[in-house]
Amino acid sequence: MKISMDYVNDNTFKVQNQSNNELLIDMCDLDKKNHLSPMELLLSAVTSCAAVEIVSMIKKRKRDFKNILAKTNGTRVDTSPRYFSSIDIKYFIYSDDLTNNEAERYISLSLEKYCSVGSTINDKTTINHSFEIIR
Amino acid sequence: MKISMDYVNDNTFKVQNQSNNELLIDMCDLDKKNHLSPMELLLSAVTSCAAVEIVSMIKKRKRDFKNILAKTNGTRVDTSPRYFSSIDIKYFIYSDDLTNNEAERYISLSLEKYCSVGSTINDKTTINHSFEIIR
Repeated sequence: MKISMDYVNDNTFKVQNQSNNELLIDMCDLDKKNHLSPMELLLSAVTSCAAVEIVSMIKKRKRDFKNILAKTNGTRVDTSPRYFSSIDIKYFIYSDDLTNNEAERYISLSLEKYCSVGSTINDKTTINHSFEIIR
Repeated sequence: MKISMDYVNDNTFKVQNQSNNELLIDMCDLDKKNHLSPMELLLSAVTSCAAVEIVSMIKKRKRDFKNILAKTNGTRVDTSPRYFSSIDIKYFIYSDDLTNNEAERYISLSLEKYCSVGSTINDKTTINHSFEIIR
């Protein structure tokens, strides 16, 4: 898997994947940002990577699926390098018949077993999850 | 640091940071992709995170700086979860007077000491770097 990166300005970079899809990344202050930062990309990557697996499992088990949302919070250590000590993901799953046990199992499996992003970062970072099923 | 995620379709998700900057992510096949995948985001994050620090160090040391590009290659393990066993980043730095020793030092420091993304993933993943200075 390959990406290439170009310089836009000191705080902004453009990346491109092998399919020529592009992405802008910036490290500007919160009130001046136009794009996600590298650490926000990491949160986005783990949250969405697991979500794909969760949806796939819900559908494979023939459970009703209407929607999935997530809120993710990354906690960084105070000293440089400020890696994530923990990432807390809460999934909101809209389904008529998914049970709590099933949701817990699918989310755990996705984050711990199937999600490639989660398994790349889970040595240093504790990934916690919670969920809510909305009928 | 927080992000929220919305479902678009089974292979496409939208994320938003606290500044309301949005990003689409997809896990479609290479020939059908419109956006970067979660694992491509990880490569993009580490490459750009370190690049910001590299440019900052070059400028602080009053060296000429014209441009920086990068090519990054991620190698995944064969069995699930397919985390990155190694990430190889090559930086191309356009400068009239930056020396090889300086470039090596700034890139190493960025990846190993300052870059928060690199330090989040470097337990499981070997991050290798190389560079070329272009006059």
